[in-house]
Amino acid sequence: MAERHMPPPLRFLLAARRSELHGLEALASTCGLVVRVSALVHALQKERGYSNLTLCSQQERLLPVLANLSDEASAVEMDARRFLDGLAADTTHASGKARMLNCIAFALFRLDELPGLRRQVQDRSMPAEDADARYTQLIGSLLAVVFEAADSALDPGVTRILVALLNFMQGKELSGQERACGVMGFTAGFFTDAQKARMLGLAANQERSFDIYAQYADGEALQCWERIQQHGQPVQRMREMAQRTASAQRVDSALAELWFDLCTTRMDAMRDVESLLAQALAQQCERRIAETRQELDDRRLLLSRYTDHASGRAPSMVFSVQSRLLDAPPPDGVGSEMERSILDMMREQALRMQRADDALGSMRGALEEKKRIDRAKLLLISQYGLTEQAAHERLQRAAMDGGLSLSDVARQVIGQLAGN
Amino acid sequence: MAERHMPPPLRFLLAARRSELHGLEALASTCGLVVRVSALVHALQKERGYSNLTLCSQQERLLPVLANLSDEASAVEMDARRFLDGLAADTTHASGKARMLNCIAFALFRLDELPGLRRQVQDRSMPAEDADARYTQLIGSLLAVVFEAADSALDPGVTRILVALLNFMQGKELSGQERACGVMGFTAGFFTDAQKARMLGLAANQERSFDIYAQYADGEALQCWERIQQHGQPVQRMREMAQRTASAQRVDSALAELWFDLCTTRMDAMRDVESLLAQALAQQCERRIAETRQELDDRRLLLSRYTDHASGRAPSMVFSVQSRLLDAPPPDGVGSEMERSILDMMREQALRMQRADDALGSMRGALEEKKRIDRAKLLLISQYGLTEQAAHERLQRAAMDGGLSLSDVARQVIGQLAGN
Repeated sequence: MAERHMPPPLRFLLAARRSELHGLEALASTCGLVVRVSALVHALQKERGYSNLTLCSQQERLLPVLANLSDEASAVEMDARRFLDGLAADTTHASGKARMLNCIAFALFRLDELPGLRRQVQDRSMPAEDADARYTQLIGSLLAVVFEAADSALDPGVTRILVALLNFMQGKELSGQERACGVMGFTAGFFTDAQKARMLGLAANQERSFDIYAQYADGEALQCWERIQQHGQPVQRMREMAQRTASAQRVDSALAELWFDLCTTRMDAMRDVESLLAQALAQQCERRIAETRQELDDRRLLLSRYTDHASGRAPSMVFSVQSRLLDAPPPDGVGSEMERSILDMMREQALRMQRADDALGSMRGALEEKKRIDRAKLLLISQYGLTEQAAHERLQRAAMDGGLSLSDVARQVIGQLAGN
Repeated sequence: MAERHMPPPLRFLLAARRSELHGLEALASTCGLVVRVSALVHALQKERGYSNLTLCSQQERLLPVLANLSDEASAVEMDARRFLDGLAADTTHASGKARMLNCIAFALFRLDELPGLRRQVQDRSMPAEDADARYTQLIGSLLAVVFEAADSALDPGVTRILVALLNFMQGKELSGQERACGVMGFTAGFFTDAQKARMLGLAANQERSFDIYAQYADGEALQCWERIQQHGQPVQRMREMAQRTASAQRVDSALAELWFDLCTTRMDAMRDVESLLAQALAQQCERRIAETRQELDDRRLLLSRYTDHASGRAPSMVFSVQSRLLDAPPPDGVGSEMERSILDMMREQALRMQRADDALGSMRGALEEKKRIDRAKLLLISQYGLTEQAAHERLQRAAMDGGLSLSDVARQVIGQLAGN
């Protein structure tokens, strides 16, 4: 029996399942975007690393390498843009995605600034710190897209992988920032106190991100990360060396390239973890879509059989809308048995959704920290008329001065300004 | 300039806004359903009251009144079903609505049982308690639809009104249950200890629901409720009278009809509050849609002017995708000024969404209690293999035995079984 001829309760039972299916299909498309964004972030991290090394070391021989990396990043960017074109054409039905679309707009805006930035790096007309900050800003805007993807996903299994990927990407990005900071210090032959504090902070925050990653990851992706960690001693040793330098106690500036290579090898290895997570993401989406589609088909068949059965026996018709008869209990008891099984189906569906919601809540816990920081920034902006940048800097300064994490400072700010 | 020719950042900026607009339009449709559901609940409450009085008092003269009320309820039901037909046709894009669609399926299933129930009441072939329980179950399934509507709404202003309406409907439904319980007791001439406890519980829970309502309501709807409360003394006096009865201390059973009339007048007055809330809901949806549409148009115009301006000056083109030029800063400074204003627009949009999210969080606080109870039930079901009904009864018994609210008991259960 065609679905539109089914009695309303059954039609809505199927519509509920189909709504889940559509949600999963949209989620799979979002995951496709996330995978492309992570590839782009990796390419930009590499480009940032070499542009930083080029600007610091003033070595002409690095320029062609850098140009190659820029070309590679452009190719990855084009792939992401093509994917986005498809997404933009499909946004007519994307209610509830406003936040993510806004993040995409912002990231695209930053990406449009990239050619100008590259030109200035090639011309050496921009200080290393500034170029580094521009790349970091751009990468931050891309990470924000991944954050929104993780926060808006409605499937607990997919959300778990997205949360793992997001935290891993954040850890890797902090590694990239540490690499840049290290190159500047080693090139100069020593680290200032501010640079030392920054290096320590970046290492500590990396560890926190990777710890959260390890909580949410499993299987191959987790093993791959454990193997990388086992080879982390050289980087650790150079971190300690950096802390021992001073303007009166300089080291050979050739160490900059050694540090750069060690960090780069480590980050390239990290890229394998991201690729494994991307695979896991695609598999999980595919599996959930196939499962849900199968369940939908099974139910459609079962319910249509039931409807045919019920409408063949007019006097005990259970769901007839037109005549609305539910006068006599079905004489053979078959109708009421099926009725019970439909009720069971509805209850089971409700329970399953509730369970998924519960699991989702615990997965999203890992995203709360960033939300808290955003909330604190917003309070500073609206109550003191600060710009977003100024609000961010104020939180960071308070964290550094008080030896606290950004998250702790955000909690204090919210406590003081929002009274909870 | 047509939107598809705009540079990607601007297209996504508009897509974000359009996503909000679509969300609001879907929300307006959900609110239309809620308004119809609240009308149906009122009609069913009235029908339940009279069927209860009919079954208790054994007065033939009530049968035609009851038949009229059933017809009225059927007319309201048909209106709701017509609305649902339109909704079902449109569910192809309703991702994330699975929970509400499932609740609708369940409510429709219960509604299909209504003709059989009515027949049994007219035949007097069902005890008053059972008929009452069947109506109450049906009304409960309709309230669940309103709950899901409130929980899935993404606009803080609309959510506030939905939370107010939901709590008011819950309070009113408890009034209806109290009316039924009172009719049974007064008809018998006295209340058993269990009935007295139930009457006290119903009165206390009503007050809690109405308190929450008063927190979220404002304007006319709140004033209307305050006027109703000022006329609550007669009901209060009869409540106290009920508590003083005993099998050895009976009252005139004619009091049943007095009690019934007092409660009915009060509930009819409450219906005015619901109508005011329904109006407020429609107005709020309309207003937000008009605002968002206007903003979308304004931005589209602004951004298309900007794009025309930028593309007219090829060398300083800021957003050209094909040639990706961002070489020179615009010589007249106009481009960069517009660029800043677009960045401001993006930031403003992000901040506004964050603010809305914050407001939404605090609105939804009022829904947490029900979610907590559902979660506790689920834990009981999955860990002790109870049915949903048994889990509910266990929570209720624990609440009654311990003199606690259901919500407190749920908190204890979650603490013990989920370890948090």
